[in-house]
Amino acid sequence: MKTRAAVAFEAKKPLEIVELDLEGPKAGEVLVEIMATGICHTDAYTLDGLDSEGLFPSVLGHEGCGIVREVGAGVTSVAPGDHVIPLYTPECRQCKSCLSQKTNLCTAIRATQGKGLMPDGTTRFSYKGQPIYHYMGCSTFSNFTVLPEIAVAKIRPDAPFDTSCYIGCGVTTGVGAVVNTAKVEPGATVIVFGLGGIGLNVIQGAKLAGAHRIIGVDINPDREEWGRRFGMTEFVNPKDVGEIVPHLIAMTDGGGDYTFDCTGNTVVMRQALEAAHRGWGESIVIGVAESGKEISTRPFQLVTGRVWKGTAFGGARGRTDVPKIVDWYMDGLIQIDPMITHRLTLEEINKGFDLMHAGESIRSVVVF
Amino acid sequence: MKTRAAVAFEAKKPLEIVELDLEGPKAGEVLVEIMATGICHTDAYTLDGLDSEGLFPSVLGHEGCGIVREVGAGVTSVAPGDHVIPLYTPECRQCKSCLSQKTNLCTAIRATQGKGLMPDGTTRFSYKGQPIYHYMGCSTFSNFTVLPEIAVAKIRPDAPFDTSCYIGCGVTTGVGAVVNTAKVEPGATVIVFGLGGIGLNVIQGAKLAGAHRIIGVDINPDREEWGRRFGMTEFVNPKDVGEIVPHLIAMTDGGGDYTFDCTGNTVVMRQALEAAHRGWGESIVIGVAESGKEISTRPFQLVTGRVWKGTAFGGARGRTDVPKIVDWYMDGLIQIDPMITHRLTLEEINKGFDLMHAGESIRSVVVF
Repeated sequence: MKTRAAVAFEAKKPLEIVELDLEGPKAGEVLVEIMATGICHTDAYTLDGLDSEGLFPSVLGHEGCGIVREVGAGVTSVAPGDHVIPLYTPECRQCKSCLSQKTNLCTAIRATQGKGLMPDGTTRFSYKGQPIYHYMGCSTFSNFTVLPEIAVAKIRPDAPFDTSCYIGCGVTTGVGAVVNTAKVEPGATVIVFGLGGIGLNVIQGAKLAGAHRIIGVDINPDREEWGRRFGMTEFVNPKDVGEIVPHLIAMTDGGGDYTFDCTGNTVVMRQALEAAHRGWGESIVIGVAESGKEISTRPFQLVTGRVWKGTAFGGARGRTDVPKIVDWYMDGLIQIDPMITHRLTLEEINKGFDLMHAGESIRSVVVF
Repeated sequence: MKTRAAVAFEAKKPLEIVELDLEGPKAGEVLVEIMATGICHTDAYTLDGLDSEGLFPSVLGHEGCGIVREVGAGVTSVAPGDHVIPLYTPECRQCKSCLSQKTNLCTAIRATQGKGLMPDGTTRFSYKGQPIYHYMGCSTFSNFTVLPEIAVAKIRPDAPFDTSCYIGCGVTTGVGAVVNTAKVEPGATVIVFGLGGIGLNVIQGAKLAGAHRIIGVDINPDREEWGRRFGMTEFVNPKDVGEIVPHLIAMTDGGGDYTFDCTGNTVVMRQALEAAHRGWGESIVIGVAESGKEISTRPFQLVTGRVWKGTAFGGARGRTDVPKIVDWYMDGLIQIDPMITHRLTLEEINKGFDLMHAGESIRSVVVF
């Protein structure tokens, strides 16, 4: 079949809207009509050539929502007509990781996914006879895409596509980091570094978890209003204070019970760790750092009781947890609508990247 | 009163055995006759001038066992005749840290202890009229010493002094890191870097916790036999393999569930983190690094599920947990006797440092 898609033919070039050839789903795969997709920093990171493992030409996009249109042989968990969110972190429920019950980092299709291929080692996309790589196992910048069955979460049919798609990455990453990875408890003091889309979702996750103080840190003063809208109780602009770590430690009588880096900046990751409370504070790295960058600290910071953790996809097991987060959204426990600041057509997709780089959007969504 | 003591008059000089003046216990303090004391790497670290906060002249030693001989006003939890282990990490049960129930790092007397002083800001030791500093709140290289009541753990009277003293630091640090900090569960795979006294205690802690595989890593081949004696199941000498991290990951199908650095070497700390299993492996820093040294890694290591922690005094709340560890020793759950490789008189104390530097002792104990 044919599908319209925004293709990244090479790094550092705008996406091009073309018509691709798409092979139908093989055994264990599903064809999904993408109804809406968010544009995420990770797409930009790859498009900008910063990801040393980025592949071109490829169909980017990993934050989508759509409808199953066809299923391959042996597919039992979804059927045509089901509403689904594609999962860049699949959940096979069979591998060592899934069976450990200690991580969401399913390894079933990791090797091929990292190479831009489907599990059988081939691509479903092609353009003028040349294969086009998949991206993060999702490729939601295409109107139709093929995914392994284990990489789709079935969700309720009344959830709107143009907001629920954000649950495919940003919402789950931020809220999940709080709920699954940090396991923030009521009454806790939380410090959030970086109030972009992820940071705002950490804030609303902390509010949902009953945190007492939710302190947002950002160098952009416009983000204070955004933070307060989702439950932030205090705002600190590092430009307005001297050393940020001692400032935060003083204002919290020792540091945050939980601190979150949502910046991807390794200097900020260290600040987040060191702003965690002596004895028990946990710091969670969410942001993706530039390749080659390292985090560092004095081991004394750990020996005196701080814990350094990270999270991917908010520690969520996609097929199990994503439908629950959709329920939370539909039942008003968390908000998404105000975060979707821009809705674009596929033809306008490059404008979405521009808005993100300019810090003008929280989330731009392409509606097919 | 007078007391014999080994005094560190200055850095990088041998200890001198002299007779000091010792003031009796003030309110909330106790006078303890030290019956035996271990010699630990931390004493050597300070004596060698590596600790930027080291104070001289001082009475070092922090791993002792003795008998309460006198108590100051208001002391209620111990009485003359009680057998006790001094605690460099006290347990006041009143401060924010103690009340958090999330850390053992009591802060009640931290400020004065770090300055070599008793809580009232003065020293009890003096020599020819000049004050001599306390060390880690213990100063067990003196036959008699004065301690805050909150810094002694009352233990059963039938526990031998010359082995139980090791519970004052090394045993509790190693076993506690496993039991309290990592909370190793039965069936786990554990990797221990550095098979000195701490490493061996981590090994026996892991055995006690029911670990399935206990892999010891040391560049000294003589340590293999030592490790096996306490429960190590496999030994790796980094000199015999290529890259140590991939080697360990291959032999454990992904890495250790728990890894422990017992070396104080920041390069090894990184190896220990990266040898932890993707998705859930936890790495615990126990060793004390040289001042100024930093640990580093790629944030990807954390984002893919590894957790970096540290531990001080094995996460043990001294007055509560040390008596239990003495019980474990007396009831045969853990061994100490084989680790006490050398018994010395106070006059021979410098020989104990030499044996440690030469790697010939596991633990030397001075018996008064």
